[in-house]
Amino acid sequence: MVGIKGFPVSAKVACQGIEGAFSQSAAETLFAKPDIIYAPEFRDVFEAVDKGLAKYGILPIENSNAGSVTEVYDLFKSYKFFIVRAVKMPVEHFLLGTKGATLENIKEVHTHHMAVKQCTAFLKKYPHIKVVISANTAEAAKFISQSGRKDIAAIASQKCAKVYNLSVLKKNIEDSSNNCTRFICISKECEVYNDADKISIMLTLEHRAGSLYEVIKFFADNNLNLTKLESRPITGSNFEFMFYFDLEAKLKDKSVSDLIDKLKKTVPYFLFLGNYREV
Amino acid sequence: MVGIKGFPVSAKVACQGIEGAFSQSAAETLFAKPDIIYAPEFRDVFEAVDKGLAKYGILPIENSNAGSVTEVYDLFKSYKFFIVRAVKMPVEHFLLGTKGATLENIKEVHTHHMAVKQCTAFLKKYPHIKVVISANTAEAAKFISQSGRKDIAAIASQKCAKVYNLSVLKKNIEDSSNNCTRFICISKECEVYNDADKISIMLTLEHRAGSLYEVIKFFADNNLNLTKLESRPITGSNFEFMFYFDLEAKLKDKSVSDLIDKLKKTVPYFLFLGNYREV
Repeated sequence: MVGIKGFPVSAKVACQGIEGAFSQSAAETLFAKPDIIYAPEFRDVFEAVDKGLAKYGILPIENSNAGSVTEVYDLFKSYKFFIVRAVKMPVEHFLLGTKGATLENIKEVHTHHMAVKQCTAFLKKYPHIKVVISANTAEAAKFISQSGRKDIAAIASQKCAKVYNLSVLKKNIEDSSNNCTRFICISKECEVYNDADKISIMLTLEHRAGSLYEVIKFFADNNLNLTKLESRPITGSNFEFMFYFDLEAKLKDKSVSDLIDKLKKTVPYFLFLGNYREV
Repeated sequence: MVGIKGFPVSAKVACQGIEGAFSQSAAETLFAKPDIIYAPEFRDVFEAVDKGLAKYGILPIENSNAGSVTEVYDLFKSYKFFIVRAVKMPVEHFLLGTKGATLENIKEVHTHHMAVKQCTAFLKKYPHIKVVISANTAEAAKFISQSGRKDIAAIASQKCAKVYNLSVLKKNIEDSSNNCTRFICISKECEVYNDADKISIMLTLEHRAGSLYEVIKFFADNNLNLTKLESRPITGSNFEFMFYFDLEAKLKDKSVSDLIDKLKKTVPYFLFLGNYREV
């Protein structure tokens, strides 16, 4: 299904988490008018799309510091869905409290465990603040809001301040000013829009000298630039590897689609994840 | 300094954390009789070795689920130290409480944020248990021990039960039975023991089609097997990549040392991390 013209401005979209989650911001960047439903886990986002509760799903696929989100790649293996769009969002964390709360009086912060890792420097500066883990950052913000307490705060997105009526006690408490997360938009069907210029695939290789070389030679011979190559031990296996590739390529080029077909036949496991535009 | 015979059985070793840390178990697997000093952060382990407070340092370099520990790779760039030994340790987490505590009465668990990620299934089964973050798992165990309370517990190593006089409330609460962490032993000097059969390097590549291919062709032409290839955006840069390679190779083979010299001259950035045995 190559060559669909414009990516839709509006659609029913499933996001992981609750209102105020980072995936909500991603959805609102990808679609002008998303109609968002929320699903508790990554798997539930795939399920919502599978059951037709939503046309698209929004998920994080890679963080510039923490690397690939293995769990999402693993779900592609089960569901065989496709990436139809992507967006790179800066990771920004805000310290949010109820009206009247001040940083000086905060004894405890609630947030997701990834945010703890991403705000190490801030948390080290305030060693007396106890850190409590929530299912996600938006849940943390909701909890603080409902508590009404002035001695506890949440680490969450700026959006959560508005959604949960909280005050910003400190903005941009994330460690690196260059930390980004890539979010993808998934679909049950393979939708390839006219502006698609990136291809994602995942595959395994035989464990012998040269097997990776041969795959990369395919790309080099076709003058395709690799923008990502990551090898990750397969979860549950003992250091067998899954390779994740991103290529600057268009499926509508015959040389590219031929290459994909050829690759498929030569490696033990191959999954085409989509041809899409990253905005 | 190629061809040192036996890896020492005893040495002064710096580990990150405090007594009971996972790096202590790694040190005790690598050395029959390690004389361990503890350093608070990864950087402090490098510092301890740099200042001669310890001959060797023990650090995690890669987890089979979470991938490479970018922070440790980054420290190699500053310190130019070498890997002289490695060991793969299974990730095992235990729920530890004071004497008389039972799982049923636990209202709060303390642990490191990585352990939260690694015990997701267990924590989901007990949603009423509040999770509080500690600097590391051993600190969490120490805190529980000192508190004397029966309603709070730590997620930490089995070793911590003995070190901090705690009871095992539940063993092996980690998600995957195959989750491993590779620990490395670092040294200021490049020590290559006779049994060394693995080479680690890190490098950057020019951003053009074929640049990665050319590097991998080097390896394939020399019949060297790649056991790891990971690309990671460089921290603080905007999706520029650092590549981490592990090779099955011996520096004492002239073809290998020639290859290393050649590579060094062709890529923008190159760092040889060591030739060592993984036990």
